[in-house]
Order: sequence, then C-alpha cells, then structure tokens
Amino acid sequence: MSAVVDLLRAELGDRVDITPAALEDARADKSGHRSTGAGLAVVHAATVADVQATMRIASATGTPVVVRGAGTGLAGGANTGPGEIALSLRGMDRILDVRPDDLLAVVEPGILNASLNTQLAEHGLWWAPDPASREISTVGGNIATGAGGLLCAKYGVVRDAVLALDVVLADGRLISVGHRSVKGVTGYDLTALMIGSEGTLGVVVGATLKLRRLVPGETRTLTATFADVRAAARAAASVTASGVQPAIMELMDAASLAAVHDLLSLPAPEPGAAQLTVQTDGADAAAAQAEIAELLTAAGGTVRLAADDAEAALLWRIRRSMHPAMERLGTTLIEDVSVPRSALPRMFDEIARIEAASGLTIPTVCHAGDGNLHPNFVFDGPEVPAHVWAAADELFRAALRLGGTLTGEHGIGILKRRWLADELGDDQLALQRGIKAVFDPAGVLNPGKVFTAAD
Amino acid sequence: MSAVVDLLRAELGDRVDITPAALEDARADKSGHRSTGAGLAVVHAATVADVQATMRIASATGTPVVVRGAGTGLAGGANTGPGEIALSLRGMDRILDVRPDDLLAVVEPGILNASLNTQLAEHGLWWAPDPASREISTVGGNIATGAGGLLCAKYGVVRDAVLALDVVLADGRLISVGHRSVKGVTGYDLTALMIGSEGTLGVVVGATLKLRRLVPGETRTLTATFADVRAAARAAASVTASGVQPAIMELMDAASLAAVHDLLSLPAPEPGAAQLTVQTDGADAAAAQAEIAELLTAAGGTVRLAADDAEAALLWRIRRSMHPAMERLGTTLIEDVSVPRSALPRMFDEIARIEAASGLTIPTVCHAGDGNLHPNFVFDGPEVPAHVWAAADELFRAALRLGGTLTGEHGIGILKRRWLADELGDDQLALQRGIKAVFDPAGVLNPGKVFTAAD
Repeated sequence: MSAVVDLLRAELGDRVDITPAALEDARADKSGHRSTGAGLAVVHAATVADVQATMRIASATGTPVVVRGAGTGLAGGANTGPGEIALSLRGMDRILDVRPDDLLAVVEPGILNASLNTQLAEHGLWWAPDPASREISTVGGNIATGAGGLLCAKYGVVRDAVLALDVVLADGRLISVGHRSVKGVTGYDLTALMIGSEGTLGVVVGATLKLRRLVPGETRTLTATFADVRAAARAAASVTASGVQPAIMELMDAASLAAVHDLLSLPAPEPGAAQLTVQTDGADAAAAQAEIAELLTAAGGTVRLAADDAEAALLWRIRRSMHPAMERLGTTLIEDVSVPRSALPRMFDEIARIEAASGLTIPTVCHAGDGNLHPNFVFDGPEVPAHVWAAADELFRAALRLGGTLTGEHGIGILKRRWLADELGDDQLALQRGIKAVFDPAGVLNPGKVFTAAD
Repeated sequence: MSAVVDLLRAELGDRVDITPAALEDARADKSGHRSTGAGLAVVHAATVADVQATMRIASATGTPVVVRGAGTGLAGGANTGPGEIALSLRGMDRILDVRPDDLLAVVEPGILNASLNTQLAEHGLWWAPDPASREISTVGGNIATGAGGLLCAKYGVVRDAVLALDVVLADGRLISVGHRSVKGVTGYDLTALMIGSEGTLGVVVGATLKLRRLVPGETRTLTATFADVRAAARAAASVTASGVQPAIMELMDAASLAAVHDLLSLPAPEPGAAQLTVQTDGADAAAAQAEIAELLTAAGGTVRLAADDAEAALLWRIRRSMHPAMERLGTTLIEDVSVPRSALPRMFDEIARIEAASGLTIPTVCHAGDGNLHPNFVFDGPEVPAHVWAAADELFRAALRLGGTLTGEHGIGILKRRWLADELGDDQLALQRGIKAVFDPAGVLNPGKVFTAAD
C-alpha cells in the first residue's frame, strides 16, 4: 500500500477507501469516459477538517487530488486515475442555515440539488440552477462546473446564484470569499472565479446560495411540432425576439425524439419532425402561453397545450429522458456548445452540414430559451473515434464563429481541453494558467483537467 | 516635458493633454479627495488602438496608468497623481451593436449610463445597473467599480449584467473574455474577475451587456415616515421578509432628510423622523404597493401614496439629492457598507452607538431593498480627520461582524485600502495580490489603488 495512503489512513481512518469497487467508481463520470486506471484511494470527507487534512497530505507529498460530488459530470472533470486521490464531498450534505428574510441558504457541497430544493420549498424558497441532472447531481458539482439547466434564460446561471464560498486551498488552508449581503465589491470577485473552475483552484466546502421565492401561480406547458429542426429553431428564436419570456423552452430534433419515444415505448413521432416544449410560469402563465402558442403557430408549428399536470409531466419526462435514451444506443459524447439565441437556426444549419459531411447522425437537444445545444455523438467502445472528434471539432468552430462557446454548462474537463486555446486565444490562456499557478503552485488540484500539460 | 510625454505625443498627437486644467481635473473624483499633485498627462483615447499605444508606452517606461471615465467615483480609484498617466476613455462612447433578439448590446466604455439607457429605450430595452450617478457616470466606470444602485435587489448587480469584455492588457495586447451567449463556462470567468477590479488588471475597452426588456406597466411610489431610523429599518426588513418585491426601497435618516429638504427649500421634516421611499413596478405595481403600504403601516409608519408621477418624481428627487446636500456642508466621506437585509436594524444600532461614542452626526441613506448603507461623514478641509477615520473603522468592523462588507458598490480605491485585509484575511489577500501580479507584473495599472504597497 502506498505511503500516501498510509498518511491518509493515519489522519482519516476508515474514511479512506481503497476497495476496488470505490476506486473503479471514481474512474468515471456520466460522460461515458473513464481514466486509464484506478486511483490511489477515495477519501469520503465528512467535515471541512477532513478536506483540509487530505489537502495537506496531498500538498506535502505532491499527490494529485480530484474532487468529486455525485460523479454526474459530462466532461470527465472528476475522473480519477493512477496516482490520484479522489476526494469525495458527497457525504457533506447538510443545510447549515436557511434565511428566508435574507433569501439565502448556507449548505455543504455534497447535497443533491433536488434534495436542497425539496427542503427549501418548505420555506417557500428555491435555488434556481436546475441542470437536467438535478435529481442526482450535487450543489458543489453544479458550482464547480457552472452547471446551467433549463431555466437560465429567465432565472439566471450559477454565477448569479452564489453569494459566498468557503474554499480549502491546495495546501489545506481555509478561506472564505464573498459575503452574505446582496452587494459587495471588496477586491476581486473570487466567488465568481471559483464557479466553473472544475476543481483546479480549490475545494468548495461550503456555499452561501442566493435564493428566490417560489414563483406564485401555476405553470403551463405546450408543445409545438415542426416539419424540420430548422423551422423549430427559427420559431424558438422568434419567441425570444418577441419579448415574451418562457420559463423553459426546449427543442428536440427528430433523431432525439425518435430515440426517447422508443425508450419510453411511446408511438413513433412523425419522421423528420422536431418539437419545442415550452413552460410558462407565474401570475401571467396562461397569457404568456397563449402568446407563445400564437407565435409558434404563425411560425408553422402545430401547437398542443398540455391539458393537465399529468400531460405536462409526460412532456417533460420525454425531454429529460434524452440522456438515458442515448446511453442505451452506445457510448455517448454529449456536446454542449452555446450560441446567441438569434443564431440557433444557423447553428442547426451547421449541424446538418456536419452530419452530411461526416455521414454521422447527431441527435441534438437544445435549451432553446438560452441558445445552449447538446449535440450527441453515439459510438461503440470506450474511446471517441477520430472521425467523431473531427466532427466535434467542426461543431466547436461553428459555435465560436457564431459568437458562442465550446461549453455552455458542462465544463472543459478532459474532453474539451484540446479546444481551449481556440476559444480563449493564447494570451488569455496564459493568464488563466497564471491564475491556476497562483492558487495551486504545486499542481496538485485536478492536474490535466481543463488545461493540458502542453497548452 | 518628460520623455514619457514625448513618446505619447509621438504616437497620439493632440490626444495627449498636459494643460494644467486637465491635469488638475484628473487629480480628483467625486469622493472629495485628490491626489498629492498633478499627473504627467491626460490621454483622451478615441480608439482601442490609442489605449494599446498608451499601455505599450507605459509598460516600456514603467509609467503608472490610471484609467478614468467621467470621474464620478467615490473611493479615489481614478485619482491621478505625480508621475502617472490619466487614460481617459470618456471619448469612447459609441454603441456598436444592439441586438433585441439576443438581449444584448456592445458598447464602448465611455458612454454615460443614462445616455445608453435613453438609446436602448428606443428598442424597448434597458441595462439594469442604475447607480445614483447614472446621469453622469460611464458604463465603463460602472463595470470597473461594480457600481450597484437602487434596483439591485430586484434586477441584479453589475456582475449579472455583463456577458463579455474586450480588455487591453498592461503591455498593450488586446484580449476578449466571455461570449455573446447566455451560458458559457470555458475556463475561468475572467469577465467576472474584471468587474470591480478598479483598473488594476486591465483596461476595459468594450463591453457586451446583458439587457432586459423594459418592464411593462406603470411604476408606483409611496413614502412612509417613522418616528426613528430603527423603526424604518425594521419596517424595510419586514418588507423583504414578507416576500413582496419592491423595485426600489430607499431609507433616509433624519439628518439626511433635513439636509436635503434644506437644499431643495422644502418645509423642514419632523425632527427625528426617518423615511422610506418605495417604488413598485410591472403588471402588479398597484397590488404590490398596496401590500407594502399595509406592511409599513403595521410597522408603525405613516404612509403616503404618491398621487401622480409629478409627486413621485419629487420624492425621488429628494433621495437623489443626498450627495449635493452633503457636498454643500463640507468635504464628505461617503461610506458604503453592506449587510444582510435582516441585519439593517442592528446596523443602524451600531451607527447610533458610533455617533454617541464619537460625538459625530453620521447622516445615512440606505438602499434598504438590498442592505447597502451610505453613512456620510462631513468635515472641513481636504483630509479625513483621524477621529473620522476612527469612527469609520468602527463602522467597517460592525458591518463585517454582521456578515457584510466594507463596500457594496463604490470599491476600495484609496480610501478603504487600510481595511482590505480585515475583510479578506491575509490568505485571500495574498491570492488577490497574486492575481494582480499575473495581469500586471510591472505594476503599471493603477498602482496604490485597492492594494497598498505594505499590505
């Protein structure tokens, strides 16, 4: 057994797990990709002190640490390989404080997003970030990746929903960044810097979350079916341009719809047809729904209003079943490009072009309310084939040309490192590496993630 | 004439201004404080290339550069002193793009906040940050300080309203950070890092702003008068806790009210009385106003609903006249502490305690909707007397004890440098200094601001 494991055991006892099952589990996330081999150990941290002890030992011995929540990432950011410690925060899942009068909660990072929101609902409150994985992903993971979700256009992204963080540094010291007040501009905004930093700058061990009050009134759901995906994308862009604000507006292309209908044993959809599913909420849910229905009809859609909550729930189940439907078909590379909303039709043109050129089918769902697309590549075996990477490369370049980004909400992890410089440019990349070196001079925090050694 | 000015002149010609009036003007902002003497030159940049040329010369010669907008800062952050170049971006004031379909605008930094919003209104759009100085302050300055304003509780802070920035680095290179899409998590969030960095990391030469649609419906205004400031603060906290969301909720204490009424030649207010002024907006403006009126009455307030827009305008003029009213009394040190909203009554207790202990009167206005207080110290002459700093020191410590911050929206500048470590702690301060060194290894970007040489 390694000397590092001995040191961890001496301080952390049976929180140090070296069972093959635990090590195997820590190799992968939900991206379908895994590390080249088992890590040294999984530390199941129960307290901030456990995290500090782990980081002290890691720093002293130069051992890489990969922070993990529930392992639901989609970019390989938490995959733990040979010579690395997996530091699991999943067990640190308490809500430490809820303040309805200040619209904030203080939580540990391991709490599941859905579990947090169930408990907040008792206070009439919620935390807006709602990644599709919300039932199974942790708040800490949401913060580490800057996970977005379906509600971002109306209710904001993670950066808008975090006031303060407690962070254990690479050498085990604990700092607090941010504040409990709505406003605060003392020094650089390290809270925002930590959000989306994917375990490369420090370990988030506590978060002060900015909450919203539950939206009063009902929600309404509709679907609109279009002859093809471009028509659906154009219709979605026209909703945004009109000024009416859906809470959620999701697009599924024909291949996605077909796969999900098959998974759920629903009747096969019209061939080639794409679908928008739109939720409105608040006091004017019905009026907004009527306005959107009119816009979508004018754009050539066949609109159906969900008759009741049960039908609405089925419609959302269809959307939320995309990931399991893809997983059933093979190994999936889920891409995550994001573009300005007016560019959605052009982005779907680019996807069609890439499909034609590569001979691949690229089932795509899209958070059409905010312009974030998830094109899926499905293949056999654990490795992304070169021709798939070549098609993904085309996809990334198209998104950047349209003023968008490689990743809207999944992060860079290992899967998009190669394209980091394409988006940032060499000058910005050097600054980002400089920041990394300030926080982690010894390079023990998730090395090889986000940045490659060669960048 | 200095060699640096010769170099600037050779590249920038008559954009280099060394007239005594210009140099004198660049010594001060609206804090009432000024640098120890005149700077080298004011560069009136007209283009990004001008900014790049200035920074190249500054870097090559080791000359400090102080970036300025309209000079409305309140912390001395843009004050330019001996040996320094003032780099004015005020002349770069174009709107480069407005995209109603993507809810964004691309602007140069020198545009005035109010001017931008006048032009955006033609498109049915607005940019939410609304510092009290909005008629005279630039968007670039708003971004550099993280300026907040009155609407933050309902409509967010600057960090929530900027998608991307173009930044000239210390050595003159130009980078772009962020993206035009709603979502994006590629690498560290340098957009957020730049916001509030007070000219110490780079020069913002372009901003992609996240816009909102103009809120449909009317606005409604009311005032409520309370026997004392604590009662008013308690009432404001009860409004936040109730869940009804004002657009604006402002508090003025007795000394502030008296000074403004005197300035505007209005009848003197009731001695000791404090006042809340509350605006509601949107489709439910009237209903929200009625609910707030009921809460404030129950909290002991005497409520008056503004009969019409003219009366509402007068009420807001009273609030917005605070700064001129104070300026008339002497040199003003305007503090800017921010606390969680539930702590407002306790913060006013602390102010009363500090007033009693110091023998000072501390007229205070407060963005009660978000917990940001502006206690004013008024004195004679250009220097803050020691006993005023001692009282301010007590104020800062009280805000930090309550979970708040030194500065909600004005920044650190020169006036709060001494307390930076008190809020951040030494470990975080060292990281912030490390980031500064990554961006500005030669120390030419606003040296001596935010950080002291000795921190």
